[in-house]
Amino acid sequence: MKHLLSIADLSRDQIIGLMDEADRFREALEGREIKKLPTLRGRTIYSLFYENSTRTRSSFETAGKWMSADVINLSASSSSVKKGESLKDTAMTLASIGADAIIMRHPSSGAAQLVADWVAPNGVGPSVINAGDGSHQHPTQALLDAVTMRQRIGDVKGRKVLIVGDVLHSRVVRSNVDLLAALGAEVVLVAPPTLLPAGVANWPVRTALDFDAEIPDADVVMMLRVQTERMQGGFFPSHREYATFYGLSKQRAAKMKPGAIIMHPGPMLRGMEINYAVADYDNAAVLQQVNNGVHLRMAVLFTLLVGENSADHQPVKEHA
Amino acid sequence: MKHLLSIADLSRDQIIGLMDEADRFREALEGREIKKLPTLRGRTIYSLFYENSTRTRSSFETAGKWMSADVINLSASSSSVKKGESLKDTAMTLASIGADAIIMRHPSSGAAQLVADWVAPNGVGPSVINAGDGSHQHPTQALLDAVTMRQRIGDVKGRKVLIVGDVLHSRVVRSNVDLLAALGAEVVLVAPPTLLPAGVANWPVRTALDFDAEIPDADVVMMLRVQTERMQGGFFPSHREYATFYGLSKQRAAKMKPGAIIMHPGPMLRGMEINYAVADYDNAAVLQQVNNGVHLRMAVLFTLLVGENSADHQPVKEHA
Amino acid sequence: MKHLLSIADLSRDQIIGLMDEADRFREALEGREIKKLPTLRGRTIYSLFYENSTRTRSSFETAGKWMSADVINLSASSSSVKKGESLKDTAMTLASIGADAIIMRHPSSGAAQLVADWVAPNGVGPSVINAGDGSHQHPTQALLDAVTMRQRIGDVKGRKVLIVGDVLHSRVVRSNVDLLAALGAEVVLVAPPTLLPAGVANWPVRTALDFDAEIPDADVVMMLRVQTERMQGGFFPSHREYATFYGLSKQRAAKMKPGAIIMHPGPMLRGMEINYAVADYDNAAVLQQVNNGVHLRMAVLFTLLVGENSADHQPVKEHA
Repeated sequence: MKHLLSIADLSRDQIIGLMDEADRFREALEGREIKKLPTLRGRTIYSLFYENSTRTRSSFETAGKWMSADVINLSASSSSVKKGESLKDTAMTLASIGADAIIMRHPSSGAAQLVADWVAPNGVGPSVINAGDGSHQHPTQALLDAVTMRQRIGDVKGRKVLIVGDVLHSRVVRSNVDLLAALGAEVVLVAPPTLLPAGVANWPVRTALDFDAEIPDADVVMMLRVQTERMQGGFFPSHREYATFYGLSKQRAAKMKPGAIIMHPGPMLRGMEINYAVADYDNAAVLQQVNNGVHLRMAVLFTLLVGENSADHQPVKEHA
Repeated sequence: MKHLLSIADLSRDQIIGLMDEADRFREALEGREIKKLPTLRGRTIYSLFYENSTRTRSSFETAGKWMSADVINLSASSSSVKKGESLKDTAMTLASIGADAIIMRHPSSGAAQLVADWVAPNGVGPSVINAGDGSHQHPTQALLDAVTMRQRIGDVKGRKVLIVGDVLHSRVVRSNVDLLAALGAEVVLVAPPTLLPAGVANWPVRTALDFDAEIPDADVVMMLRVQTERMQGGFFPSHREYATFYGLSKQRAAKMKPGAIIMHPGPMLRGMEINYAVADYDNAAVLQQVNNGVHLRMAVLFTLLVGENSADHQPVKEHA
Repeated sequence: MKHLLSIADLSRDQIIGLMDEADRFREALEGREIKKLPTLRGRTIYSLFYENSTRTRSSFETAGKWMSADVINLSASSSSVKKGESLKDTAMTLASIGADAIIMRHPSSGAAQLVADWVAPNGVGPSVINAGDGSHQHPTQALLDAVTMRQRIGDVKGRKVLIVGDVLHSRVVRSNVDLLAALGAEVVLVAPPTLLPAGVANWPVRTALDFDAEIPDADVVMMLRVQTERMQGGFFPSHREYATFYGLSKQRAAKMKPGAIIMHPGPMLRGMEINYAVADYDNAAVLQQVNNGVHLRMAVLFTLLVGENSADHQPVKEHA
C-alpha cells in the first residue's frame, strides 16, 4: 500500500488488516504512561491542510509523534498558496524538501489523488494520505469508525447501520458506505432528498425519509455534522426543520434497541443534529471514535511507511 | 496537585514548592549548551489557545520540549471552534486523543476550571493548566513574578509591591494579589477608579490614586499592560491621561528607592504605561521574568505530570 | 560566523565553506531512510515570520529537526505583535526564553540586522538568520542557488547568469548579485526600468531590456516571482505585458544553449513569469533548488551553532 486515498481502493483484507493493526497499537500503548515508539524515527511527515481541523490534524500529529516521526504542519492560510502557487508546485516542494508522507485536506474532491500522482509518479516518492477531499473521501474516519463498531457491536456483517443527515456534503458518508459494503453491513441513508447526492441510486445503500421508522432495528445510528457553511439557497431545510426531522432527539434515542450505538464523526453541533444530552449517553461512542483515531492513524502511517509485510510481527515487537 | 487553575487553590507551601522547583530547573540547565532533560518523554501536551500569545505559548512549548514531551499546538482560529463545536467537546476530544496535559487560554473567566471538571471528573484524566482565563487568573505569570522578586529583592514578606494601571482587565493582577497575600507582601493597587473592578474592596490590598506618592517606599513597581482592546466607551482615561497619571516616566523611576525593581508581564507598550528608556533600566526585571517563565513552567509541568512527592529528589537527579 | 544576515558579510571562502558543508550534509543523508543526526540535540530554534512562507519556513524546520533541534514556530498573526509589542521586545523575549537561533522574515529591509544587534550586542546571545527582510536580502536562497548551479554547471566563474523580472521588489536578487560577484560570475539583470531599483548602477551587474537578445549565451536563466502584491500604480507593466516581454516562454526556452539551466526561487506563478510547461523541463532546476535548501540550511544552522572550526571534521563524523 503506497497511498491511502479512498476506501474504494482497499480490499476487504486490507481494511481488516489496518483495523487489526490499529488494535495492536492500542494494546501496545494502552495504560502506558510513556507513549513513545521508535517506529518512525527519522521519517518526516507534513500535514498540508487547506481547510480547518482540530481533531484530524492533531490526531495525525499525535500518531506521528508517538512513533517518533518529525511532523511539520502547514496551513494554507500561512503559505505560498496565498501568493498564487499551484497545488502541484506546493506538493512537489514538500516532496523535494524530503517528505516521507503528506497528509492532506483539501476542499476539492480528488485533490489527494492528483497530489499522489504528482509526487510519486512511478510509485517512488512520498506517501499521500487523504484526510478529506471535498465531499469525496475521508478514509481514516471510516476506518476508525469500523474499529469502533467492532469494539462495540462486533462484526458488522448483516448489521444495520443508519447514516443520518447531510449526506450531500459529507465525505465521511462516502468512505463509510464503501467500507461498510466491503464488510457486508446493511447501510440506510436517512436524509431529505435535497441533501442526497445525484448518484446515490448507484451506491450499495437504501435511502429513507422516515428517521423514526428506521431506528428500532438499527445497530448503529451515525449522525452527520450539518455542514451549514456549504448550504446556500432555498433547497435546504431550515435549522428547525433539520433538527425536527433529522436530529437525534431523546425520544428517538429511546427507541434504539439495546446494544445499539450512536456515532458522530465530530465536530458535533449539539442541539442541531444531536440532542445536547444524547451526545453524552453511555451508548454514544463519539469519544471512543476519537481515541481509536490515533491508533488507526498510527496503523496507517506504519503500514504506508514501513510496510505491510512487516506488519504481522514488527510493530508488536517494536512496542514491547 | 492535579491542575493549576488559580493561585487561590494553592497553599503557601505549594507556592514556595513550585518556586523552589523552578530554581532547581534553572540551576540544572543554566550555562548548559544542551538543554534537554528526559523527564517528560512520552507525555503529550496540547496547548489550546483561544487568544493570541507569543510569550506564554512559546514559553510553555519550550518548557515541554526541554523535558522531551511532545507538544502539540492548537489555535482557535484553525480549529473546529469555527465549525461551532462547544468548548466541552473540544476539550473532551483532546482528552480522548490522549492528552496528558492541556494548557489553555480562553477569553472567559472560569473556562479552565470548567475544562478541568469535564476532562478529569474524578481526578482521572489530563491535567489542565490555566494560561489565562478572561480577567480571572494567570497563575504561572504570578509564580514567575514571585521567583523573579525572590531573586532580586529576597523574601517579599512585609515588602511593598505597587501594581499600577489597568487592574480591571488584568488576570495578572488577580493571580499576583492572591500570591503576594499568601507570602505576606503589602500590595497597593494604583489605578483610576474606572479601571478597578467592583469587588476590589474585598481584596487583601490597598488602593491608591496618587502614583507619585506611593513610589518612594515601594520595593516593586509592577506595571500592567493597558488592554486598550477591552476599553470601550467614555469611562476610560485617554492615552495621554493614562500615560501622564499612570505611566512609569523617567521622573517617577528616579524616585524609586535603591534596590527597588520594575516589573512588567509583557507585552509592553513603551511610551504608554512605561517610558521607552525606563523599560531598559538596570532595575527593570522584565527579561528576567521571561527567563524565569520557562523554568517555572517546567516546574509546573513536572509537578503535575510526575508528582510532588518525587519533586524533592527526582528532578535534580534526572537533570544531573 | 555568529549570524547570517547578508551575503555581503561573507568572504568568498565563507560562501564556499557553507556550500561545501551543504554538500556534506546531502551526502550524509541522501538515500537514507532514517534522516536524523544528533548534531543539534538540545538546541532551541525559533522561527519568527512576519510574512507568509511555505518553503522557507518548512525547509528550516526540516533542517533543524533532522539535526534533532527543538524548532518552535511563531507567526506574527498569532503573536503579541497584534497587541502592539515592538520588534525589539519580541526579539528580546525569544532571547530571554532561551533561543539558540532566531530565524526571521520581516517586511522591512534591515530588520534582521537590528534584531542581531539587539539580541547579541557583544556577540553573546542567539544567532540570527535572515530568512528575508523586505527587498534587501535572503542569503540562504542565494547560497542554495549557488549549490544548485555548482551541481548543474560547475564553477560559475566567468559564466553568464541572467536574472529576469521584478528586480525592484526582490531580496533574492540582491543576495544572488552579491554572491555571484564574489564567485566571479557575469550577472545580467533583465527587467523593465520601472522594476529596477534606483541604485542598480552601482551593482556589479549589467542591465538589459531585451530578454531574447541575452538568452542564447546565458548559462543560467533565473526567473523571479512577480510580486504583484507590491506593485501599485501605473508604473508597472500589466500582466500581459510582463508575460510577453519578461516571461520565459517555450520560444525563449528553446533558444537556450545546451546545458544551460532554468532556475526560480519559488513560489512560481506559471503562466506569468514562466510558461506552464517550461517549469517542468529537464533543464529546470527548481525542485533541485528546494532540495538543496534543506541541506544548505542544515549547513548554516550547524556552522552558526556548532562552529566553523569544527566544520571540517565534526559533521562528517557525526553523520557517519
